[in-house]
Amino acid sequence: QAQSNATLYGRVDLGYRHDSGGVRQQIANNSMNAVGFRGVEELGDGLQAFFQIEHRFDADTGLPRTPFWDEISIVGLRGAYGELRLGRQGGPFGVAPDQDAFGGDTVAGAGERKAGADDKYNNSVVYWTPAAGGFSAAVGVSAGEGLQRRGASAVLRYAQGPLLAMVSYADRSNRDHAWAAGGIHDFGAAKLILAAAHNDGDASGKERTTFDLGTIVPLGRGSLRAKLNHDDNDGVKTRNFGLGYWHDLSARTLLYSDIGLQKTDGLERVRRFDFGIRHNF
Amino acid sequence: QAQSNATLYGRVDLGYRHDSGGVRQQIANNSMNAVGFRGVEELGDGLQAFFQIEHRFDADTGLPRTPFWDEISIVGLRGAYGELRLGRQGGPFGVAPDQDAFGGDTVAGAGERKAGADDKYNNSVVYWTPAAGGFSAAVGVSAGEGLQRRGASAVLRYAQGPLLAMVSYADRSNRDHAWAAGGIHDFGAAKLILAAAHNDGDASGKERTTFDLGTIVPLGRGSLRAKLNHDDNDGVKTRNFGLGYWHDLSARTLLYSDIGLQKTDGLERVRRFDFGIRHNF
Amino acid sequence: QAQSNATLYGRVDLGYRHDSGGVRQQIANNSMNAVGFRGVEELGDGLQAFFQIEHRFDADTGLPRTPFWDEISIVGLRGAYGELRLGRQGGPFGVAPDQDAFGGDTVAGAGERKAGADDKYNNSVVYWTPAAGGFSAAVGVSAGEGLQRRGASAVLRYAQGPLLAMVSYADRSNRDHAWAAGGIHDFGAAKLILAAAHNDGDASGKERTTFDLGTIVPLGRGSLRAKLNHDDNDGVKTRNFGLGYWHDLSARTLLYSDIGLQKTDGLERVRRFDFGIRHNF
Repeated sequence: QAQSNATLYGRVDLGYRHDSGGVRQQIANNSMNAVGFRGVEELGDGLQAFFQIEHRFDADTGLPRTPFWDEISIVGLRGAYGELRLGRQGGPFGVAPDQDAFGGDTVAGAGERKAGADDKYNNSVVYWTPAAGGFSAAVGVSAGEGLQRRGASAVLRYAQGPLLAMVSYADRSNRDHAWAAGGIHDFGAAKLILAAAHNDGDASGKERTTFDLGTIVPLGRGSLRAKLNHDDNDGVKTRNFGLGYWHDLSARTLLYSDIGLQKTDGLERVRRFDFGIRHNF
Repeated sequence: QAQSNATLYGRVDLGYRHDSGGVRQQIANNSMNAVGFRGVEELGDGLQAFFQIEHRFDADTGLPRTPFWDEISIVGLRGAYGELRLGRQGGPFGVAPDQDAFGGDTVAGAGERKAGADDKYNNSVVYWTPAAGGFSAAVGVSAGEGLQRRGASAVLRYAQGPLLAMVSYADRSNRDHAWAAGGIHDFGAAKLILAAAHNDGDASGKERTTFDLGTIVPLGRGSLRAKLNHDDNDGVKTRNFGLGYWHDLSARTLLYSDIGLQKTDGLERVRRFDFGIRHNF
Repeated sequence: QAQSNATLYGRVDLGYRHDSGGVRQQIANNSMNAVGFRGVEELGDGLQAFFQIEHRFDADTGLPRTPFWDEISIVGLRGAYGELRLGRQGGPFGVAPDQDAFGGDTVAGAGERKAGADDKYNNSVVYWTPAAGGFSAAVGVSAGEGLQRRGASAVLRYAQGPLLAMVSYADRSNRDHAWAAGGIHDFGAAKLILAAAHNDGDASGKERTTFDLGTIVPLGRGSLRAKLNHDDNDGVKTRNFGLGYWHDLSARTLLYSDIGLQKTDGLERVRRFDFGIRHNF
């Protein structure tokens, strides 16, 4: 049998979806479907080299959602001095409001919670400090390479006991500036999740502000999840409500069912419903 | 060494081909070249979660034949109550006439044997019953999602001792209707394979009827294979004859050589010849 | 855990690059980024079946550089009678001048050293003889398939003790003819590398001649590398000088830093600088 220095991993998530504002009955990707390769090599003295490349696709049609390897494509080193990652990757800004009761997935996970400022960067460098007293931080820069303005973002992270809290800032290549804050507290009977973000829209003057409130309540072999989301996009307000029960068949496989309600100023309310299976490998 | 929850698998098949009606001398893909990932997870109580994604390519040019992951892209559950598969996949209709002396591959495997009704479906659900008394059955539905009419098909399967027999029916999204029957009987000294299919062409009135007769005779470390194929496509008749010897170097690798003759009404007879190597991994 | 008959392998190489004649500051792929699958099966009696498919991508943007599986896509057999490979692959011509102090990578590895005649072939067959007395040889032919003229090339290889020497010839599908010679001698304190190639340009009359001289000097846990390259392309001369230090963190991972100088007749001298990390998996 063959041995590789890399691990094949991914996710296939498919199920039924009903959308009162779109396709009424469909077999849909209720979360991202992905396949990727990653690996870690021990270099001695606690130093590690690592890489990761990942691709997203639509399992309902078998078509790529984005080009290979658009989701992430990095190589890096980590050790006592922190972690350095080079390549295409998400910027540190998006980390702060990245917690979500639904992982941003399913009909219940709808709603912008990063003020539209959650960039993936080409040609980028991200450095994470080691953790000290529960604190760690990351800064990321993406080279403009003459094609665009250089973009940069940073995040400060605090993780101690039941609390994880983060604040972040982005100076985007399109000259927007955004900040975000997010946190998750595990009360045992439930986790409470909060996120907020603001984008100044810069010269366009089109400000965007988002709030997101969620909870995950362990229940039997699964969890009950709910969230409220508010998005004020240059005065146009959208409110999302999501509720779901996710049942773990194993650590890798779950069944889920969710409802989502969405109301945007001036538009009809949209009702969504889904159920499906998610399998991580 | 890295461990994955998924298996990398595929096939590379290349060889020489001569085609009196096309390219005279070529290095050709004599069967599908494929690469895919699949995995099975035991969930306890006999329940399994599984996934599979597969992509086809032309090994002679190194180019994709279809987009990733067009061939199949599914997730499913199987257990005491049968098997449920969601995603992009072949419909149950094609299962009945799916046996072929050449697997539909090489110059000898030419010839339509599914009356042109062998669909792959996006957004589909296929359910297979458990087997009982040798019988099992499958039904499949593909959601139209507002883009097309819903398609559906079903197959009934009987497998007992040396006999495998199947009948199937399809109500296609283009309003055609098709039925098919197929079987394989292992007489020990040889396997005999039969398939027939009919497509009513619906409103177009362009009926299509196909017959296929094949045999596989074990011979030394390989097998002698032959088939006759008849295709009446709205009155235009095509006849194919194929003959080949396939030599197994191992359970995964084989050498083959085949001839194929094709005669279509009003066209010159085409003679084809191939030899090559097929490697499954 | 899943077992595969194939190995996942590849490379991610990213770093900083400065180019006085191009993008001043960039995060760049300083060598090819690749991912591929390969496998070998023992068939008994020393016979092996093998396959390999490989794809190149730009890790800085996460985009494919070439279609899957453009780099190589082959199946073959090897044993006491030599090795036969079918599919898309490099021709034997390019093997002779294939040694390079920088593997053709990084800013220091710049410079044509194969007289522009280093083809990848679709639909090709390459046969390598077994080695005898240090000698081995390969011939390769790519079928024109009615689209182009058949191309062919051959290489003679001598490997004994510290010396590897090769000469090759190509009769290209565009009617050019090219020869090349290359060698590497390991003196212990340093390796010396030489390559030369000539392309007659055929009817176009645009001859091209290239020379390449390089050295690799082991130094601590890494190596000091240098090369000089000369390319006379129909009278337009380009000279490249490259110098670099490559530090091995492990057998799979290295840090490198290089400088490259390039002067083409009539153009300004270009200065390049890079440093980065390369991780093989």
